[in-house]
Amino acid sequence: MKNIKGVRIRCKNTGQHMNIDYTEAANIIRNCKSAYILIHQSPDGDCIGAGTALYHILKYLGKKAKVVCPDEIPERYGFMRKGYIDEDFEPDFIISTDVADANLLGALKEEYGNQVGLCIDHHISNTGYAEKTLLRPDASATCELIYELMEILEVPLTDDITRCIYTGIATDTGCFKYENTTARCHEIVANLKRCCNICYARINRDMFDVKSRGRMKIERFVSDIMEYYLNDQCTMICVTSDILDEMNVDSSELEGLAGIPLQVEGVEVGVTIKQKDEDSYKISMRSANDVNVSEICASLGGGGHVKAAGCLLHGTLDEVKKKIVDAVEEGIKKCSATA
Amino acid sequence: MKNIKGVRIRCKNTGQHMNIDYTEAANIIRNCKSAYILIHQSPDGDCIGAGTALYHILKYLGKKAKVVCPDEIPERYGFMRKGYIDEDFEPDFIISTDVADANLLGALKEEYGNQVGLCIDHHISNTGYAEKTLLRPDASATCELIYELMEILEVPLTDDITRCIYTGIATDTGCFKYENTTARCHEIVANLKRCCNICYARINRDMFDVKSRGRMKIERFVSDIMEYYLNDQCTMICVTSDILDEMNVDSSELEGLAGIPLQVEGVEVGVTIKQKDEDSYKISMRSANDVNVSEICASLGGGGHVKAAGCLLHGTLDEVKKKIVDAVEEGIKKCSATA
Repeated sequence: MKNIKGVRIRCKNTGQHMNIDYTEAANIIRNCKSAYILIHQSPDGDCIGAGTALYHILKYLGKKAKVVCPDEIPERYGFMRKGYIDEDFEPDFIISTDVADANLLGALKEEYGNQVGLCIDHHISNTGYAEKTLLRPDASATCELIYELMEILEVPLTDDITRCIYTGIATDTGCFKYENTTARCHEIVANLKRCCNICYARINRDMFDVKSRGRMKIERFVSDIMEYYLNDQCTMICVTSDILDEMNVDSSELEGLAGIPLQVEGVEVGVTIKQKDEDSYKISMRSANDVNVSEICASLGGGGHVKAAGCLLHGTLDEVKKKIVDAVEEGIKKCSATA
Repeated sequence: MKNIKGVRIRCKNTGQHMNIDYTEAANIIRNCKSAYILIHQSPDGDCIGAGTALYHILKYLGKKAKVVCPDEIPERYGFMRKGYIDEDFEPDFIISTDVADANLLGALKEEYGNQVGLCIDHHISNTGYAEKTLLRPDASATCELIYELMEILEVPLTDDITRCIYTGIATDTGCFKYENTTARCHEIVANLKRCCNICYARINRDMFDVKSRGRMKIERFVSDIMEYYLNDQCTMICVTSDILDEMNVDSSELEGLAGIPLQVEGVEVGVTIKQKDEDSYKISMRSANDVNVSEICASLGGGGHVKAAGCLLHGTLDEVKKKIVDAVEEGIKKCSATA
């Protein structure tokens, strides 16, 4: 999907923004003639699913539509493009789906960053860069919002739309595994399954089970170098520059590594250390249950969420490890005291 | 849970059996005074969940109830026993949940095998050993059946029941990942989540993400010894007696190994070979997509399902491997020809 230069846009962002509800968002969609649908850089299942499902909705409603992404759509998500026909036109309206911040538009930011008329998103961190925003932080995925809009707009479910919405919800909830998996999202999937008989299990397999040989190698390696601290309540993997060189893998293969130290039975805090420079290290910390890693990382100068946080530490690797273990020990103690 | 000897049972199995519907099963439950609920050996999330949920239902209806299992309940399922009080009594009725065959009652078979008045099950392979059977092979889990019965019996959902039913459905569907995950099972989970605010994500983590250090070691090892055939469309792991001795792990840690060769991108058939004797090998075969491994295994003297089958082969390891690769090549060719 190429970025089309020099289009005229009907809605210019005035610098003010407004949160709107489903009905108003549906009205905006009903009233536009043609639209570009922007999705974020490093596109994932939810933004591709939401953008492409919205494309099908607009087409059903007789409008021109085009999904525009600053990056290539990875091959593994290619199945969601079934039924999508890319065409060039000048849009009268710009919509973004699943884009929390104009900076996530990457190369598209300069041209469209302040021209988004409607943003549809579920990230609580949404910066309000669009003129109007349909924001539902309680939703598991932006695809959930697209589904609700579709019901209001009385657009019938097709296999193409179902494939997109299902994939978005499944990928953003870790196949219904994470805390953000709501009753509503199970209800939506029940409706999808009642209406359309696509191969859901195949999507799940491709999204969650299949790994490249490179990724398998990394996971094996990571398990090999895993270190155990604090009576095995804290696990740590440390990816130094030397190790990266030695493994000779693409850096994209390193995503999601932070979850691996948490897989070990009995572990409360999993830590991933990635070397940035000679003496600086990026730390990702994950909590399995009740230990507050946001507080632990704050005590180390960082921050984040209760169950997933991070910080940047300087020093020798041994110094960095000691700082982390001391802080985690403190955090575990605090958690036990309040339990 | 101990097996209580010498009980008097109201319903003796006459040797005839009958398939019944939900209403009749609910009536039987309504009319019994006290019951033992038998679950199968090597108990899993679904039989423990179904049995324990039924216990709570019987207790709510004012009856005596006891879950009886031929084996110890593994510690990881202990959380489902919350609210369960074990008491000794002589039951007037015997129910089994999720037990497809009287042989799966293990040590309980001799005493109760022909005394089961009501079997509640979802396995298509159910042998009809009980006097009356509520059998729903279209259900994802026996826990789904228990949920339906609960609605008919107008028993309110509690946290204890929800924990059991959720765990049964989640474990039997691989956290909603497998083909058996129906629209109805998503609907049921939506209802559970609307009614009871238990920590679903914690259950998912404990059931699906957490591994023992021993298990991690095995998975690492298995990845290390994985062999690739037929342009990487066939992966094979081969666990010989020597390897087992070398790893020094509990054989229970080997469960589910057959899924690992399928995790590699592009693989169509994953094969696991386990040595039984000097010159005999047990083969498990899994299909990722459309290759029919039931046919492949049949051609090797075995059988099974389209996506999961097995056989027993004799010869040297090299001979066995060659037989398998040749048969898999044939199966892949056949699949490509019909695609």
